[in-house]
Amino acid sequence: MSTSRDAQLTARAAKVIPNGMWGHMATRSITAGYPQFFQSAQGCRVTDVDGREFIDFMCAWGPNVLGYQNERVDQAALAQLARVDSGNGPTEALVELAELLVSTLDNAAWAMLQKNGSDATTVCVTVARAATQRRKLVVVRGAYHGAVPWCSPSLVGVTAEDRAHILYCEWNDPASLEAAVAEAGDDLAGIMITAFRHDLGRDQEMPTVEFLSTARALCDKKDALLILDDVRAGFRLDVRGSWAAYGVSPDLAAYSKAIANGWPLAAVVGSERAREGAGKIFTTGSFWYGAASHAAAIETIKILRDTDALAHTFRMGDRFRAGLDRVTAVHGLKLRQTGPSVMPMVLFEGDADLKIGNAFCLAALNHGVYLHPKHNMFLSAAHTEADIDQALAAAELALQDIARAGVIKG
Amino acid sequence: MSTSRDAQLTARAAKVIPNGMWGHMATRSITAGYPQFFQSAQGCRVTDVDGREFIDFMCAWGPNVLGYQNERVDQAALAQLARVDSGNGPTEALVELAELLVSTLDNAAWAMLQKNGSDATTVCVTVARAATQRRKLVVVRGAYHGAVPWCSPSLVGVTAEDRAHILYCEWNDPASLEAAVAEAGDDLAGIMITAFRHDLGRDQEMPTVEFLSTARALCDKKDALLILDDVRAGFRLDVRGSWAAYGVSPDLAAYSKAIANGWPLAAVVGSERAREGAGKIFTTGSFWYGAASHAAAIETIKILRDTDALAHTFRMGDRFRAGLDRVTAVHGLKLRQTGPSVMPMVLFEGDADLKIGNAFCLAALNHGVYLHPKHNMFLSAAHTEADIDQALAAAELALQDIARAGVIKG
Repeated sequence: MSTSRDAQLTARAAKVIPNGMWGHMATRSITAGYPQFFQSAQGCRVTDVDGREFIDFMCAWGPNVLGYQNERVDQAALAQLARVDSGNGPTEALVELAELLVSTLDNAAWAMLQKNGSDATTVCVTVARAATQRRKLVVVRGAYHGAVPWCSPSLVGVTAEDRAHILYCEWNDPASLEAAVAEAGDDLAGIMITAFRHDLGRDQEMPTVEFLSTARALCDKKDALLILDDVRAGFRLDVRGSWAAYGVSPDLAAYSKAIANGWPLAAVVGSERAREGAGKIFTTGSFWYGAASHAAAIETIKILRDTDALAHTFRMGDRFRAGLDRVTAVHGLKLRQTGPSVMPMVLFEGDADLKIGNAFCLAALNHGVYLHPKHNMFLSAAHTEADIDQALAAAELALQDIARAGVIKG
Repeated sequence: MSTSRDAQLTARAAKVIPNGMWGHMATRSITAGYPQFFQSAQGCRVTDVDGREFIDFMCAWGPNVLGYQNERVDQAALAQLARVDSGNGPTEALVELAELLVSTLDNAAWAMLQKNGSDATTVCVTVARAATQRRKLVVVRGAYHGAVPWCSPSLVGVTAEDRAHILYCEWNDPASLEAAVAEAGDDLAGIMITAFRHDLGRDQEMPTVEFLSTARALCDKKDALLILDDVRAGFRLDVRGSWAAYGVSPDLAAYSKAIANGWPLAAVVGSERAREGAGKIFTTGSFWYGAASHAAAIETIKILRDTDALAHTFRMGDRFRAGLDRVTAVHGLKLRQTGPSVMPMVLFEGDADLKIGNAFCLAALNHGVYLHPKHNMFLSAAHTEADIDQALAAAELALQDIARAGVIKG
């Protein structure tokens, strides 16, 4: 019987939480053997409740973009906390943050703030419907836009009506997008597309200019709104928004995760065209005006805008990617490494059942590296060359372990 | 032209936020003249951006139950922040909080955590549907359950299908509840009712035992789930949940607002009967595992459970209520004071257009008291007798002001 702290907490949790844990942080969904509970985090390292420290490649599943406990961000938030967080109204920080989002993000004329990524995507849909007075939303099949009934990856507890006006197209397939738009007829409110295809358990795909341009042209033609769901990738690929380099501007964009380096926040920004619709809807939350997270976001975005942080993170991602190819090739293995190197998906060729991937990630855990076998990972600006090289050395040891165990060749 | 800081920020906000502000904290919806922006809060006092300090009777619209900047709560949260807030998984604080919710709240066998009150009510609906494999939800007409499409008080941007399975009954009217349940037929998933009737702009009403007992009996008969929406009143009336004194136990209950004294958090608790359904749904959010708010909630609930805080707040509410009756009677006015005294609704008799109420509240602002003319207000444990008496003295001056202005008799 295990007497680890993690096992003890897991047993306690099983009594007072359905299934012991809910949602994306239920680590049983990664593969058996991952720790569920953590005690601390600093820079690019996380420590579980049994005191095992890992070089982290999940970054809290996205929020940590500058490194855990970033001093500038946390000092700004703590200084704000000492004045007021939730009061009878917002503070100057809300206005300053809205101004910063508008000046930083492509095609943003205004901003509204929330707490969850699902809040932001839902507000985008509601604004699109209010602005167009139409109902249909086209999304890409399999894309994750949140965990509320209209878009949850699970249909349990969801009714057919929750998705009555959602139409589906295929990723990077302009013809299927055109077909979905045609199906919407004169009832098209908008098209929502993620920054890139970052679906679970499969190769990631960057958008083609043709796909995004088709979406933009269809929205223009139909007087509908193009919505960028940048919740997962926003403030990681490009501080101007993840489509800025493609020359395709959204009418609405949803942000969360990395926007405040781990402080809870989400945001919607929109174009002038969407402003009137946004002003008509009623959307709110008790903590959406909380100033500490606003202060954290201001500092996070300024660092990302004014420093080398993102470029550095890409260099670290590229170094990690090249190193993984190198250490796996020694064992005659080929990797499928897809997506931006700062949000890498790493799958083993010919490993559909993830037998190799799961074994490799578990072995890497034992050597002090926290990876994910089937979800895109995340790097932060706190990763140094030394961290990457240490992680690669651990990966080599992990590969040797699973070779000895007969999972791969020696 | 106004050169107040509030006016300056309001002008800046108008450029970068649709309508200048969204949601319940857009103070234009109170009445013209309320400050929009605040700079600090401490105890039972808030200070706007122009340095005007007010004795506060809104408590951040609910979250502040112990007083702003409560030292025990904030120290616990800050200590947790120094270890980890958002990491790759939750901390022990999540388990401890779930255990505390289960041991404190009536009929709670398990807990799940979120960020918004709307998250919690939506999770309750989803769990009820998953547990029963049915679709219909009965709610009370006009009740506020959040600001997402299935329950928002606005229909702008909302489709008919978002509410396809919502049925309505009247408050404290068992016959109308029975009729709505009959209409649901064999498709009833649940009945959702707020702690008491706390609708905007009207007399508040406590539930009758008959109404709650009827709801309980109908859910038992139909094998559906009874849901308490305790988002606004939870941890204010009774630490065991707002229906505990009525002897009616919900199957599911939603909490937020006061649960962590201003730190962003929401929670759903449920009975054994609802556990399996809760374990089947997929619900999550990037920041729902954030440990700082969990630590704040643990401390908040322990203070409420172990100290005189709530009883003290009721004494202060009763003192305020009696004092308001006294000072308004001098002017020949009669008040309609309804709801729990710690969440008081104060309306003037014969003031349907709120001409007196608005003028009185604006005059009270000028004398350093922040009231609301048409929404239930909130007291906190930080209100002392001296604060209440000072607020009543200010109310007297405010009444004299509006008498001089001819709004009421002298």
